[in-house]
Amino acid sequence: ALCCLGSTAAVAGTRVPMLPPGNALNPQSPFATLYLPENLPSAADASVGPSAWTHAYGSPQHNAAFPLPASAPLWARAGVHWNFPEARAWPLSDDKPFGAGVYGIKEALPVQTQFYGNALGVSVVGGVVFAESDDMFAYAINAHTGKLIWRSSPVGNTLMGNPLVVGDKVYLSAGNVGFNFANVMRFKNNPASAGRGVNISYNGIYAMDRKTGALDWYFPTRGDAMPTPAYDAGRLFITTGNGSAVCIDATNGALIWRNHLGGIANMSSPAVADGRVYVAMSVKPFLYALDARTGKVLWRGTIPGAANTGMGDVSPAVSDGIVVQDAVANPMDIAGKPTLETLVRAFDASTGKVLWTYDMGRGHKVPAFKGGVPMIHDGVVYVGSPVTSAYVALNLKTGKPYWRWPVPNAGAAGAGRGAPTYYAGTLYVATGPNLYALNPKTGRELHSVHVGGRFGIVNPTIVGGTIYLGNSWDWVNAVPLREVNPAAHP
Amino acid sequence: ALCCLGSTAAVAGTRVPMLPPGNALNPQSPFATLYLPENLPSAADASVGPSAWTHAYGSPQHNAAFPLPASAPLWARAGVHWNFPEARAWPLSDDKPFGAGVYGIKEALPVQTQFYGNALGVSVVGGVVFAESDDMFAYAINAHTGKLIWRSSPVGNTLMGNPLVVGDKVYLSAGNVGFNFANVMRFKNNPASAGRGVNISYNGIYAMDRKTGALDWYFPTRGDAMPTPAYDAGRLFITTGNGSAVCIDATNGALIWRNHLGGIANMSSPAVADGRVYVAMSVKPFLYALDARTGKVLWRGTIPGAANTGMGDVSPAVSDGIVVQDAVANPMDIAGKPTLETLVRAFDASTGKVLWTYDMGRGHKVPAFKGGVPMIHDGVVYVGSPVTSAYVALNLKTGKPYWRWPVPNAGAAGAGRGAPTYYAGTLYVATGPNLYALNPKTGRELHSVHVGGRFGIVNPTIVGGTIYLGNSWDWVNAVPLREVNPAAHP
Repeated sequence: ALCCLGSTAAVAGTRVPMLPPGNALNPQSPFATLYLPENLPSAADASVGPSAWTHAYGSPQHNAAFPLPASAPLWARAGVHWNFPEARAWPLSDDKPFGAGVYGIKEALPVQTQFYGNALGVSVVGGVVFAESDDMFAYAINAHTGKLIWRSSPVGNTLMGNPLVVGDKVYLSAGNVGFNFANVMRFKNNPASAGRGVNISYNGIYAMDRKTGALDWYFPTRGDAMPTPAYDAGRLFITTGNGSAVCIDATNGALIWRNHLGGIANMSSPAVADGRVYVAMSVKPFLYALDARTGKVLWRGTIPGAANTGMGDVSPAVSDGIVVQDAVANPMDIAGKPTLETLVRAFDASTGKVLWTYDMGRGHKVPAFKGGVPMIHDGVVYVGSPVTSAYVALNLKTGKPYWRWPVPNAGAAGAGRGAPTYYAGTLYVATGPNLYALNPKTGRELHSVHVGGRFGIVNPTIVGGTIYLGNSWDWVNAVPLREVNPAAHP
Repeated sequence: ALCCLGSTAAVAGTRVPMLPPGNALNPQSPFATLYLPENLPSAADASVGPSAWTHAYGSPQHNAAFPLPASAPLWARAGVHWNFPEARAWPLSDDKPFGAGVYGIKEALPVQTQFYGNALGVSVVGGVVFAESDDMFAYAINAHTGKLIWRSSPVGNTLMGNPLVVGDKVYLSAGNVGFNFANVMRFKNNPASAGRGVNISYNGIYAMDRKTGALDWYFPTRGDAMPTPAYDAGRLFITTGNGSAVCIDATNGALIWRNHLGGIANMSSPAVADGRVYVAMSVKPFLYALDARTGKVLWRGTIPGAANTGMGDVSPAVSDGIVVQDAVANPMDIAGKPTLETLVRAFDASTGKVLWTYDMGRGHKVPAFKGGVPMIHDGVVYVGSPVTSAYVALNLKTGKPYWRWPVPNAGAAGAGRGAPTYYAGTLYVATGPNLYALNPKTGRELHSVHVGGRFGIVNPTIVGGTIYLGNSWDWVNAVPLREVNPAAHP
């Protein structure tokens, strides 16, 4: 009886069992959900932050900035400072990841992001910070005190997403970067048919009770579900490592539609706007606009020469009827070393017409995630690239560049993967072990602080006076804005 | 200071850091080592079982059978019955693994073995059962009571081995089956150069304190260390997913030699005998005899037509100057479906001369581990194959078959991966959810019991009156011999 299928309605034959592996039956299990209600936010604190989190990086624009009303608690406006150690916390003071001596620092950094700590940034809703970690746990942490409310490991797999939080549910996405041997051989014969995560570990979307962290239901996928899904109007939009786009009922996980596009969604999260879902895949490198209601392809576009993990790494950003996507492209060996370009392209959101293409430049190939997550604010695209280890600001309508900021001491694995955040006239960037404040008009660096560890594809999540972050070293960090930008927030 | 390199002497530049990720710094971490000294065996119980465990399946012959002296405690002679739930324990009563509805039962079975429970069988030394699980924990369990003595998760990775236990140490091997994208592309261009586990998760050998489960030191490897190492005369012999054979000092993890052979060791554990180490690789499919002192290749042999994960899956067995190895070979589509043969071959241990080759027959391709682990007892080779789902008994000197036993209801994923165990005139086999007793002279089934869950590449470990087992459903099972073979042990 413990193992039976759930009563959840399932459309089109999809079965939604209630008990996945790892929803440990044994309360003594280290994977059993831990719930500490004494750490729930107070009524006043529960008003801090947005009321829902529907997209990776907070919105289709990817600008995770949330001002507070004047009635907000003082701590929230002043900012708080804490570091929460997750299950495999590695010393923040250690500037080298595990295995640097064996794999080399260049490879060891992304490995620590992919298998040890937080790949993306955190979500903040109602006074609670929600984080997914590659340590296989999700966490709910009191945004004020930094104390644990719950931790839960619904399945034995890496959790690489930025938790979605809507109503009484938190949605987690499970999947890791591996290919099994059968898919390695499949890639040899027909690359676009090879699925990442197929028959290797447990993939899918896990819907947890927002308050307690208990598993409500889950929707298994065949390929990995590394990308964070997107939520709109009661539905979740999912992309997978075996090239599928899927729409499910966010209430009960029932399948609404599925469209097998081919290729691989690595970490590219969908964006939903105006009834269309934007989805990007690598290997068969296309940006697709799908009808949100039916999943049918309305248009598809590409980036010329998109290569390697290219388009499937990057989550498209959408604003003002324009979709912005970037990808590494046009590999070329220079002096015996592999190099890549990073191209940014804007598409008309309703027709797919190419509006402009901007070449961020060429640089040495980096391991793992190779693009930069674009962020759009007030008609400007802000985007980085670990290939060039620089951020640029571009005019959303024309692609004309305003400035270019090279990340200091970017290191061998490159820096510039995470989306910047615009808040109260300043641009914030989390990259390497540091947080930076930049002048958004000039790209001039205003100030920086050393947090420690490493920020992978992490964007600063700013709620009032605090920046919340996920760290590859397996910590959640809260840093007051005034420490990063003392001139603007004395 | 927490993060510093250890004081362990390191030969040839190998650094042996003391703190891997997952040796959680935080005692509140779910991955922190749990030690319950109240469950240590009594002085009398500590005499049960061998005094060391030096090879996968207990010895180079792979016959994990350990009779007891007459002075042994009554419970040990009579046998005990318990089931210990590990961290992700799935109900033993559930005959379907997770994901069967999504991946199909054929694929879901090995996925549960590879990512959820115990891939191999257990080790028993001094009244304690030692188990490694793909739930990322290792366990020490009181052989008499089935109570936990310690559990420890030294690293965030699957532990697929059969723990070695020598002196005051337990050696664990970490590595999973995944290939990262860079190695997927490398396989496309030059298959033998692609490394499994390279820059994907944390690989290596972890030396734990036998009594408490605390980490002593570890030796990181670049490719996965899925295969259980072998111990001989103070040294550990390791094979990896990127085709290396490595010898380290078992006391402190210092490198003694390394020989990069190429290809992939999947689950093939080395065997050491008479100063030679026998090592098998797939993709570049060879069985190597190496000088245990220097790592130099003394001879190498192959199995004609060895294909797919072939030779690298299977641990060679050695006895009486003969090495026995098998592999899937000669792929052929029949009626549109892929099929394989399983060939067993015997080599002269000192010269590599082929003594005989036996064709176990052709069958449909199965997922994951495709060979059978051979066991040698008293001049007879006992070996199965999931491709044919049958066990055979062969004359060690001539390869002449004595009998063939088809596994009943073997299922789509095939049965016959684990080595049989010969004990007191009976042959025991763990396959599917069942334990079987066979007449070793005729292959006739004497009796069977349903344990539940699934046995992957699991051999019955027999100590006196009890069979100890690791289960893909994430349990350790203890079953009295008299239940499996009531006629011989009434």
